[in-house]
Amino acid sequence: MSDDNRQELSPEEQFRQQALDYHAYPTPGKIAVALTTPAETAKDLALAYSPGVAEPVREIAQNADNVYKYTSKGNMVAVISNGTAILGLGNLGPLASKPVMEGKSLLFKRFAGLDSIDIEVKHRTIEEFVDTVANIADTFGGINLEDIKAPDCFEIEKQLIERCDVPVFHDDQHGTAIVTAAGMLNAIELQGKKLEEATIVCLGAGAAAVACMELLIKCGAMREKIYMLDRKGVIHTRRDDLNEYKQLFANNTDKRTLEDVIEGADLFLGVSGPNLLSPEALKLMADKPVVFACSNPDPEIKPELAHEVRDDLIMGTGRSDYPNQVNNVLCFPFIFRGALDVRASEINDEMKLAAVDAIRQLAKEEVPAEVLTAAGVDALSFGPGYIIPKPMDSRLLPRVAKAVAQAAVDSGVARIEMPENYMAS
Amino acid sequence: MSDDNRQELSPEEQFRQQALDYHAYPTPGKIAVALTTPAETAKDLALAYSPGVAEPVREIAQNADNVYKYTSKGNMVAVISNGTAILGLGNLGPLASKPVMEGKSLLFKRFAGLDSIDIEVKHRTIEEFVDTVANIADTFGGINLEDIKAPDCFEIEKQLIERCDVPVFHDDQHGTAIVTAAGMLNAIELQGKKLEEATIVCLGAGAAAVACMELLIKCGAMREKIYMLDRKGVIHTRRDDLNEYKQLFANNTDKRTLEDVIEGADLFLGVSGPNLLSPEALKLMADKPVVFACSNPDPEIKPELAHEVRDDLIMGTGRSDYPNQVNNVLCFPFIFRGALDVRASEINDEMKLAAVDAIRQLAKEEVPAEVLTAAGVDALSFGPGYIIPKPMDSRLLPRVAKAVAQAAVDSGVARIEMPENYMAS
Repeated sequence: MSDDNRQELSPEEQFRQQALDYHAYPTPGKIAVALTTPAETAKDLALAYSPGVAEPVREIAQNADNVYKYTSKGNMVAVISNGTAILGLGNLGPLASKPVMEGKSLLFKRFAGLDSIDIEVKHRTIEEFVDTVANIADTFGGINLEDIKAPDCFEIEKQLIERCDVPVFHDDQHGTAIVTAAGMLNAIELQGKKLEEATIVCLGAGAAAVACMELLIKCGAMREKIYMLDRKGVIHTRRDDLNEYKQLFANNTDKRTLEDVIEGADLFLGVSGPNLLSPEALKLMADKPVVFACSNPDPEIKPELAHEVRDDLIMGTGRSDYPNQVNNVLCFPFIFRGALDVRASEINDEMKLAAVDAIRQLAKEEVPAEVLTAAGVDALSFGPGYIIPKPMDSRLLPRVAKAVAQAAVDSGVARIEMPENYMAS
Repeated sequence: MSDDNRQELSPEEQFRQQALDYHAYPTPGKIAVALTTPAETAKDLALAYSPGVAEPVREIAQNADNVYKYTSKGNMVAVISNGTAILGLGNLGPLASKPVMEGKSLLFKRFAGLDSIDIEVKHRTIEEFVDTVANIADTFGGINLEDIKAPDCFEIEKQLIERCDVPVFHDDQHGTAIVTAAGMLNAIELQGKKLEEATIVCLGAGAAAVACMELLIKCGAMREKIYMLDRKGVIHTRRDDLNEYKQLFANNTDKRTLEDVIEGADLFLGVSGPNLLSPEALKLMADKPVVFACSNPDPEIKPELAHEVRDDLIMGTGRSDYPNQVNNVLCFPFIFRGALDVRASEINDEMKLAAVDAIRQLAKEEVPAEVLTAAGVDALSFGPGYIIPKPMDSRLLPRVAKAVAQAAVDSGVARIEMPENYMAS
């Protein structure tokens, strides 16, 4: 598209065209394969392929661990989707999910130096999806599931964790949960409250909602003080339309609506849709509330409006143009980096909690000048407007990866020791 | 390994250690993922991932062909194996095949600029392998099957061709067949014979043998003049132990042994094992025989010995250190390049025969100085010692890819037109 035409476009149309151009040029897509060894001369090729390649083949046949020594497996993450819940766009099928999955691969490389390739899977049943992924899993050092609709994603992840020798991690669940928990814990602390005593409202009951609440419980939240709402209202024990994952959050209560449960609540998590938290509802929350309105791009309540209504609020959103962005990229590249570097067999709760702590801690530290520059801001200090590190914070890689690797070692799921001076700056 | 230690090693041990070192350094394996778009600033990431990535997602959801415009699919080849027939090493399983598959990916990149990633599949039944590959096939622009044992490979390839929208090509069969046919046709021509009249002995009845003979028949060879032998001897119509693929070559003959059929034969193809063609047997062949002894690294008869016995011989092997190396790399990178560049739905016989012709023709042309340099020789001219181009011949890419793309267009399997000035130098 020529510059002349572009000047006539609205800012939204301009961004749309920029995004399409970004994906179309210089070559279609965002990722390519690069060679890490010389491949010019006949001698090079005799080492890379027949006859030389027979040597690493024999070594791996004798000891499977040698695959980490002689192949790319140990640094390779598959980003796998069936396209049933693409971003906020819904079920558009595996092919349409490809730009997102390539984008995720790009983020793995950009933030953690992990090689990553996308795989889009078409299938009829959950079993067929699981079989397909399990059958190819040994190719990779780890598997990041992405954009798979709930409740299928819970069953798929559970079965794949059982069947695969390498870590399987559904980022829409756990990446979101880890970053949300880190932000919420810091916010609760700043508000002078305790998570154990907090009343929590979770608007939304999909993959991210369930994972966030489960992780908050592991951080100390009380299950009976959580009110989760789906499209039909409060999830309570007298409903007979709940899948097994929602049942875990069925509250023995007479409250039925958001207005019923928001009154006196300390903490609100929105993973639902635009403008679903009204100013009136927000007014009903307890003193010093914490509101994470993570619907993207349009949050459950606009930050400007929320702060107008409540000046004792700490707020997070999914957007980069407001403070306290809940962004999975704070977590998933580094959790995989740490897991792969000690060949963890899984990504367990200990590792997830270690990631939460590392992210929390980083937000409390003084921010170096280069991080400020990268984030494009003059100053950042721990407080209501800065409870989570910025995505461009280069300290995330060493901190989170090391914490995760250490937790893997300590919890017994690491297959090798932590490398000496691991992630030392 | 230190240089001091290495000096004590035999040449074989030195090569072995070099091959292992080549795979272990600078990082494990041979391939990595590279980014083709900028990914530094927050703006870059907003285009590459959320929210910008939603735009190409929508475009693909509206029109599936847009996946070629906005993702890496169109330049991406999967190299897929189950490790049941790794090189000449046998069934060592999917994991042990990984260095070979990565090596193949390296060759795709090196020779044709195609991005390629390896996938190793574990499975119980043929059906499960086919399901797995078919379910992930849309991720890629084409699928190269590799090192899958016969006869499974025939059924697997047949089913996958039916089920996949992208080209599926078992290189051990067709790549071998194309290069073998090109060399044999040139050799037969030099010997002043006609393929239609030639008596052919094929020692070996695996994937490559069957594919080579089928392709030679499409080039004009007579099925009834072919004698194929497996471990039990000549494959003939009275045997009741033949799978359906061997049955196609069951000859209505009383001959039972290699010695029986080699007498008066014009053409011998060995895809069997070391030293299985004796000098005595070679002596029995017709005048001006053609012998391709392709067992690797040790051919069915050593070239020195063969030439001692017969001075009217034209010979090819699988080895790079003798003239006339039958090397699949002359074919597979370019056949995929041509197929993908016109979005061929399959790699059909017309495309395979076009590749044979392009390779044959190239061997007959004057060899430019830079190709001689790359091949490390002073001179090459069409004749008994040069019937097939050298793997390092940079003319192969434009010639073979263009011929294959044109054949795809002409045979109606191309989904887009040939790009203007395609492969013009």
